[in-house]
Order: sequence, then C-alpha cells, then structure tokens
Amino acid sequence: MRGAVLYAPGDVRFEERDAPKIIEPTDAVIRMSATCVCGSDLWPYRGISPVAQPTPMGHEYCGIVEEVGRAVTSVKPGQFVIGSFFASDNTCPNCKAGYQSSCQHKVFVGDAQAGRLRVPLAEGTLVATPEVPSDDLVPSLLTLSDVMGTGWFAAVAANVKPGTTVAVVGDGAVGLLGVLSAKQMGAGRIIAMSRHDSRQKLAREFGATDIVTERGDEGVARIKDLTNDVGADSVLECVGSQESMMQAIRATRPGGSVGYVGVPHGVDLNGEELFYTHVRLHGGPAPVRRFLPELIQLVWNRKIDPGKVFDLTLPLDQVAEGYRAMDERRAIKTLLRP
Amino acid sequence: MRGAVLYAPGDVRFEERDAPKIIEPTDAVIRMSATCVCGSDLWPYRGISPVAQPTPMGHEYCGIVEEVGRAVTSVKPGQFVIGSFFASDNTCPNCKAGYQSSCQHKVFVGDAQAGRLRVPLAEGTLVATPEVPSDDLVPSLLTLSDVMGTGWFAAVAANVKPGTTVAVVGDGAVGLLGVLSAKQMGAGRIIAMSRHDSRQKLAREFGATDIVTERGDEGVARIKDLTNDVGADSVLECVGSQESMMQAIRATRPGGSVGYVGVPHGVDLNGEELFYTHVRLHGGPAPVRRFLPELIQLVWNRKIDPGKVFDLTLPLDQVAEGYRAMDERRAIKTLLRP
Repeated sequence: MRGAVLYAPGDVRFEERDAPKIIEPTDAVIRMSATCVCGSDLWPYRGISPVAQPTPMGHEYCGIVEEVGRAVTSVKPGQFVIGSFFASDNTCPNCKAGYQSSCQHKVFVGDAQAGRLRVPLAEGTLVATPEVPSDDLVPSLLTLSDVMGTGWFAAVAANVKPGTTVAVVGDGAVGLLGVLSAKQMGAGRIIAMSRHDSRQKLAREFGATDIVTERGDEGVARIKDLTNDVGADSVLECVGSQESMMQAIRATRPGGSVGYVGVPHGVDLNGEELFYTHVRLHGGPAPVRRFLPELIQLVWNRKIDPGKVFDLTLPLDQVAEGYRAMDERRAIKTLLRP
Repeated sequence: MRGAVLYAPGDVRFEERDAPKIIEPTDAVIRMSATCVCGSDLWPYRGISPVAQPTPMGHEYCGIVEEVGRAVTSVKPGQFVIGSFFASDNTCPNCKAGYQSSCQHKVFVGDAQAGRLRVPLAEGTLVATPEVPSDDLVPSLLTLSDVMGTGWFAAVAANVKPGTTVAVVGDGAVGLLGVLSAKQMGAGRIIAMSRHDSRQKLAREFGATDIVTERGDEGVARIKDLTNDVGADSVLECVGSQESMMQAIRATRPGGSVGYVGVPHGVDLNGEELFYTHVRLHGGPAPVRRFLPELIQLVWNRKIDPGKVFDLTLPLDQVAEGYRAMDERRAIKTLLRP
C-alpha cells in the first residue's frame, strides 16, 4: 500500500508503506474513500513544527470498513464510516462529558493520506452513515472528520446563539466552516475577516453578512465600528498565531466568548490584559466525535454543504502537489481520492 | 474629614483630606457605616504594585446617603446603600449585558477608607436596602460591595451548578466566600485549598466538604485523586499569581470551567498548554452591581452570613493596624468602623 510521508519541510513523498491490519481487538481497517490535506499539516510542511524523522501524514478520513477486531460491534464490514483525528473510547468520563479529544485513552490517527487505514478504538471512534453515500456526498462527509467538526466546535465554544453577532478570524477552511456553522446556529450577523477574494466569496456563500479586510488592531477597530464600540458576542479564532488570538480576544465584547481552535503556535496570553477584557475563552482540539451524528444528518439531508471548501481535487498519488497548492495559497483545501 | 492614605509600602496614614461633595449632578455623598481592607490593597502595601504618590485607599463601602446630585432619583438621603468599587451607569451595552465593571463610563471608587465618600454615577451604582439595617447586618452588607460579589462572580464564571464538584484556590476572604457561593448554588462537593487552620475552619463552616493542603502540582494531583483522575467541574481562582492560576487550570476537567477573580500579577498563559486542557476560562473584575439586588436579599433574609470573614474589627482611625494584621496574616479581613 502506498501513502504520504513527510521527509523534511516541503518534501512529501507518496511511497510504499506497510499495509494496515488489525492489531488490537478494538481496531478496524477501512478502505479510504477520500482523504485531504489539513491546514495543520502545513505547520511541519513549512518547517514551523519540527520534522524529526520521515513521518506518515494525514488525519482526515472516511471510507468503507474492510475488517474489524473481535471487540468491535458497532460498525461492520461494508459500512461507510467517518472518524475523528483522535480515536476515543467514547466511554471514559471525558468522552461522556463530550470531550472525546481529551479521551483518557485517546490515540492520534496520523497516517490517513493512504489507501487504507487502521483505526484504533473503532467502537468509540467510527460513526456509520445511514447507507453507503452517493459519491457527491463524500467530500462533505469527509469534512466531518476534522475541518467541519472543528469549525462547528469553534462556534459552540464561542457560544453562538440565534440572533447574535459573530466574527471569524481566519479565512482558511476551518474559518470558512466556522462561518457556515454560525449561520446554521442562527447567528444574526457574521463578520468574516478575510482579504482574499475567493475566500470572501465562499464566506458570503456560507452566510457571512460582512467582510473585514483589516487585521490586528485595525481589524479590531473595524469590528468595534460595526458593533457600536462594544465588540462581537462571539469570535471564532481559527488560525493559532499570537496576532490572531489577540485580534479575537480584543474584538469580543465584555462577557462575550472566544472559541479558539487554531493550534496555538507561540501564543502567550497576558493574564492581566485577559482579566480586564472580561472575555470567555474556550477551545482546544475539537471533540469531533461529539458532533458526528448531528453533522452526518445535516449533510445526509443536504442541509449543509461543507465540501465546498475543497477547491482542488487530486488523485492521492499527487498528494505532494496538494500540499504545494495549499502552501502557496492556490487552494483553500485539497481533496485526495485514492 | 480624615481618611487613609498610602504613602509608601507599609506606610498607611490616617489623615485630614478634603471632605467629599457633590461635583457632578450624577454624584451622591454617603456617610460611611463601615469600610474595610481588601486583599488587593495589600499589593501596593507590600510594594508589589508601585506607589507613585500618596494615594487615598479603600474601595469597599456602605452607608447612609447624605446628599445626591440633581440627576439622581433612585436613591435619596437617609437610605442605606451599597455600591461596587467600579461606579457604573448601568445603562450602557456592557452594563445591560451584566458587565458593569466594564461599563463604558466606569469610574474606580478608590477613597472609601474614610468617614464620607463621593460616589459617581450614583443612579446606576448604588442599591438601597429595604430599610436601614440593624447594626449586626452591616458587616455582611459591606461584603457585597466587593469581596462577596467577587467570590460569587468566581462561582458564576466557573459555571457552578447543583451537584457539581468545585475546587477553590486561595483561602483569603474572596476564596472563602467563593466556598460560600458554591454552597449557595448547590455544589455537591466543595474542595477548599488551604493550609491555615482558622481558614480551613471557616471554609468548612461555609460549606467546604474537603480540604486540600498541598499546592502547585501536588495540589493538582490531590484534586485528581479526589475526582477519579478527571479534575473538578469548576475551579475558582482567587489569588492572581502564576502558580495559583496554573493550579486552577490544571485541576479542572476537560470542558470544566475556571472562574478567575484574583487580579493577575505577572501571570502568563501558554496558549498551547491552555488549548490542550480544554478548560473554559472566564473572570475579571467582578460585576458586583449585577449581583447586588440578589445578594442583598440573601443577607437581608439571613440566608447567608458573609460578614464572618471579618475576624478583626477596628475603629477607622486604626486603619494602619488593619493593614498590618492582614499583611502578617493575623487577620483574614479587617472591618473598619468610622
């Protein structure tokens, strides 16, 4: 079986790897229907996170179950399933509280840019669709594995409610799906912070009512202008840099909420500044598993179409070009088909 | 009129100051029934916050209205009133959202350790009791001006609900009243983190079910031991140091909440660590005004007795000894009677 391996910054190879097989009785092996490149894959690709050794890549997946271990009863061969980038048992106290990405037994699934995948803790991790989906639904279903679940969590964590004013920092796929999530949750006004035409267009399609092109303190000032000098009720932070985090915090009204899902890189928060903002802060790696049943229904019934974030589709063996296109911002997000 | 003035670390003097009078039509002048020394007064007293010039002190107050400006109609001379350390108009968007301590026109009330006090924005700031209270109720009513409202806000911000497990970091007056607040809100288990006998005793009296004497990582480990390795649902951070803040964050379960009300001194939060904790963070200067009507009722009907935190009562002219006793931890909190 072949799959993507990152050797060094900028050097992704599609090469022979061991075929996955059942190791634990709680495992499943799936045949990939589609996988993709994540914004967070670009951190090591760009050398911002270190690459210590050749590393299999990819953590977004959906496909057909080929085989399950003897402890797995909730899904069976032939079903189409989706799982999170964190496998979870879905029974520990953290899972029961809805934080499956903090499962006490969580396992990161990190080799999904391949034709087949071993999924640990399959019973707790995988959720099957009602039937095997038609091919046109696959991209949207794939997004539920991470990017859509993450945008959704950003909106949940930012406490988006019907009629409220929401701002979204970051116009990558997560930010755009944060816009879609806020719209779905009934936000009255959705301000997308973006300076790229194609992303602004998709943001509007997903439900953005306003676009702010300024960043940093100027971006904050624009949000204040648009909200009677108060700030937004909810701000979704979908980048993970110091600038974007402070932009999100400062653009939020006292008592409002920041939902932050961009993996922080070099972010330090000054306790005293945070204190006087009166902002609520919640975020972390999205507990995608919590949202899978609800989001599968929304996609299945064609209420949402998050697959629109894929503006480049490539055969899996061209995965290297998929990374390049995203790195150079020629693509928002690359879908890979085995 | 005489009042307390801080000249330098450790040097509080009780000396002649200008008598307060109505300056703006929105002012009131009150005759102090009682005032007190706050834990936050100790920051400059200890030289941790700078003292640039002789500074009038005190921000906790209750008393009888003597005079009001012509724009003040909600309270009148002769009434007993309580107000927050932040005067607020109670009409701006932030006030309406319940964040009066982020009022767009807020004014810090910083000269309350005196016989009389000018209160700006009196219409929005002052709340009258049903009648002039009997003398034994005055200490508890005084706490509503800051320390009880702050402990209450810590519990609200930490999302305390009936039956949940709460931990309280800090055994000063705010922490102890955080315990009382959590109890009043129906917490099932309340873990007070304290290593001082007299404070442990009061914590138990206020509703603490467990005492943890360890601090830092050891304290966190004890909380984990007590909660099946998950962490507390709600943690109240009532100190404001780096150690106490990290202790609070690390003792909270994923998806649980930290309510932080200790004014941060040198606190820096690592974004990446915070991200992976999945903790909710909310706090800031307590919007005491929001809680005044409810808390006045609870004290008036003798449902709560927060005045128990005063374990030293002195005449106002001995204010310097009041600071010393708290600085040396001989007193939890000093009540001052003019």
